[in-house]
Amino acid sequence: MRDQSQFGELTGTGDSTDATRLVLDAIRLRGCRSRTEIVERTGLSRSTVAQRLGELFSYGVVDEDGHAPSTGGRRPRHLRFRAEAGRILTADLGASSIDVALADLGANILEHRAEPADIATGPEAILGRVEILFDQLTESAGQTDGAVWGIGIGIPGPVEFNTGKPVAPPIMPGWDGYPIRERFETRFNAPVWVDNDVNLMAMGEWRHGLAAGHSNVVFVKIGTGIGAGLISDGVLHRGAQGAAGDIGHVQVSDDRGVICRCGNVGCLEAVAGGAALATAGLLLAKGGESPRLSSMLDRDGSLSAISVAEAAAHGDSASLELITGAGRMVGRTLATVVNFFNPSLVVIGGGVAGAGDSLLAAIREAVYRRSLPLATRQLHIAPSALGGAAGVTGAAAVVADELFGADELPATFARHVSKSKLPILEGTP
Amino acid sequence: MRDQSQFGELTGTGDSTDATRLVLDAIRLRGCRSRTEIVERTGLSRSTVAQRLGELFSYGVVDEDGHAPSTGGRRPRHLRFRAEAGRILTADLGASSIDVALADLGANILEHRAEPADIATGPEAILGRVEILFDQLTESAGQTDGAVWGIGIGIPGPVEFNTGKPVAPPIMPGWDGYPIRERFETRFNAPVWVDNDVNLMAMGEWRHGLAAGHSNVVFVKIGTGIGAGLISDGVLHRGAQGAAGDIGHVQVSDDRGVICRCGNVGCLEAVAGGAALATAGLLLAKGGESPRLSSMLDRDGSLSAISVAEAAAHGDSASLELITGAGRMVGRTLATVVNFFNPSLVVIGGGVAGAGDSLLAAIREAVYRRSLPLATRQLHIAPSALGGAAGVTGAAAVVADELFGADELPATFARHVSKSKLPILEGTP
Repeated sequence: MRDQSQFGELTGTGDSTDATRLVLDAIRLRGCRSRTEIVERTGLSRSTVAQRLGELFSYGVVDEDGHAPSTGGRRPRHLRFRAEAGRILTADLGASSIDVALADLGANILEHRAEPADIATGPEAILGRVEILFDQLTESAGQTDGAVWGIGIGIPGPVEFNTGKPVAPPIMPGWDGYPIRERFETRFNAPVWVDNDVNLMAMGEWRHGLAAGHSNVVFVKIGTGIGAGLISDGVLHRGAQGAAGDIGHVQVSDDRGVICRCGNVGCLEAVAGGAALATAGLLLAKGGESPRLSSMLDRDGSLSAISVAEAAAHGDSASLELITGAGRMVGRTLATVVNFFNPSLVVIGGGVAGAGDSLLAAIREAVYRRSLPLATRQLHIAPSALGGAAGVTGAAAVVADELFGADELPATFARHVSKSKLPILEGTP
Repeated sequence: MRDQSQFGELTGTGDSTDATRLVLDAIRLRGCRSRTEIVERTGLSRSTVAQRLGELFSYGVVDEDGHAPSTGGRRPRHLRFRAEAGRILTADLGASSIDVALADLGANILEHRAEPADIATGPEAILGRVEILFDQLTESAGQTDGAVWGIGIGIPGPVEFNTGKPVAPPIMPGWDGYPIRERFETRFNAPVWVDNDVNLMAMGEWRHGLAAGHSNVVFVKIGTGIGAGLISDGVLHRGAQGAAGDIGHVQVSDDRGVICRCGNVGCLEAVAGGAALATAGLLLAKGGESPRLSSMLDRDGSLSAISVAEAAAHGDSASLELITGAGRMVGRTLATVVNFFNPSLVVIGGGVAGAGDSLLAAIREAVYRRSLPLATRQLHIAPSALGGAAGVTGAAAVVADELFGADELPATFARHVSKSKLPILEGTP
């Protein structure tokens, strides 16, 4: 007979592990700053809260600072999550970019670097480069290996979250089933989580951006491709195969001439994605229909979707027509999504979205015209607050949630308490 | 300073309330039948499990029966949720029907009655009738008032779940903001929960139908109107305004002649819903394009969508064309939903869907043709297993979950333990 749960070795019984997590979450995520607030928030008894706090103090993830306003009697002190107790490394791999960041345990970004890269060069080249960038980040921050508590990686395709493996990602040749987790766990001796990049952007915007406080959120990324990340009742919705949010390949056109990189015709992404806008812009420039795009092409040697958005922002009518047409198509698809999912916030992010207001205006107009009054009554549609940092921020938030979640908590503390009784790092920013 | 949580009065500390719920859920929902299984499932210590079981025995909601296979030593006995300890009354109000049922605490339907009714006659007439039917159900079952632990009511429109009030329901004149909960709480002296009817059907199919074991499910109701209910990662997704799942008013046609009862043009429901099919069938019958529908009209004096489906099932080509056209439109919208939400199961229910296979076949074809390979790789599309009982079953499951959920648990036991130490009912079926 087992008198102890599977977590019993580290923290006594399973009861206390669960209580420890509840107390930590109350401080880490819910903003509780006193014992009384934790008791009210969690429903745990005062004596249990005191016990668990003692444990969290000894692990170095919670401390007390300053003094809360006195309510008579002994002056209570402020409880505080020690985000500086550890570090998280994150990478956000896009179709044409690598973003890496060093974050603290509160998913605050301490250092962020971005560089162009082609995801289609395959996992060896891309992940090898990420490893070098991770080394640079930890070296420049003066951290030791032991300071990295976890690693989070986002990729532009579906991921089986439990194994950390890409699942038939359409724009990532050579990545299907690649053991990303194992590679980084071996290299950096830290637990690794891998997720879809747009899921992570949604998570970043939810924890540290303008989606904070919303329980039902759709994050739409408009970059080379188009995808969405969903928060359902305060939880990231990944779907049955980790494929949720794939709005880029919804068929929006019967025009058989519009062939998508996925092989189908008429996909939203093939009509309104960044690659489609760049191609259409090039035609306008070469056809002489847009003098501004022609001169941009002469100057830069190439055109991107962002060039088209910039031309539209400067009043180029042909470019404006392209951008608003794309926005209308995105908006029509989002109207269905809004009716179906009933979010309180739609966040529009990604490189193309960031290039001007005309796209957002066209999306808004189409959504409000075609969604139900009740679904849009309190709906906000807004541009991403975090911009290019949404993915790396969300990756850090996912890693922190996993590190301090019910299943991983004992392992997380065991790993760090065994290295030193108090894993407190100096040199906190 | 508070040394006890808000639940402290009843069950000691909040810790123990939470533990009590975990133990009860392990038996009620997870199929645990021994103390060892509960310890493994919950991570609670053996002594905590023993304590909480003692409490649940005394409340009469758990008992032991028979003997589990011996594993050496003392023979363990089977733990069992005593679903017969109480009753739940449920009503599923459709656009043109009332379903009522008496269920046990395990959401097993003991008695189910259905009758036609027009929701547009307003809350006084409809809810007055539901009260009479509830009285008949409890009287015929020989139950006292005290035996009803909770009431669940579904309505064909959006609901603010926290208050139990309809929110601007488009097909329910006079119902906006009506205090359904208060009315039934006063009349039956039991807690009441109100939800959208399709949400409840999804819940019913998930707990007691073919969606059991799936974590991400879309239930589509095709009746007079069209709507969907969503299970996201094992939780009913209601959305920000309780309006999630409204796929009936997605615009699928630019034909300005197709005016929906919601006032917009080209809605899916106005093209493919039951009312639209009945109208189109009537035109076929009167225009002589369908001899079978003409003779059905002569015989019955009217035609419904189910008449059209039956004619199609008997090989009437004009009716078949109507049904497959409707299925294609539903399937096109569901393809977007499948890409966006990535369910592992789509359940098709509602009166029209139950009338034949041709609609389902057309829906399947459109979804599989237009959704992404990854999203459909393991996707099942199947007809409802519960049929007309899906709503009343789901309502009972929602009530049971609320009664035995963290917030309500102490009140639930206080209510019934105060009436009699052991609320054990005789006459269990």
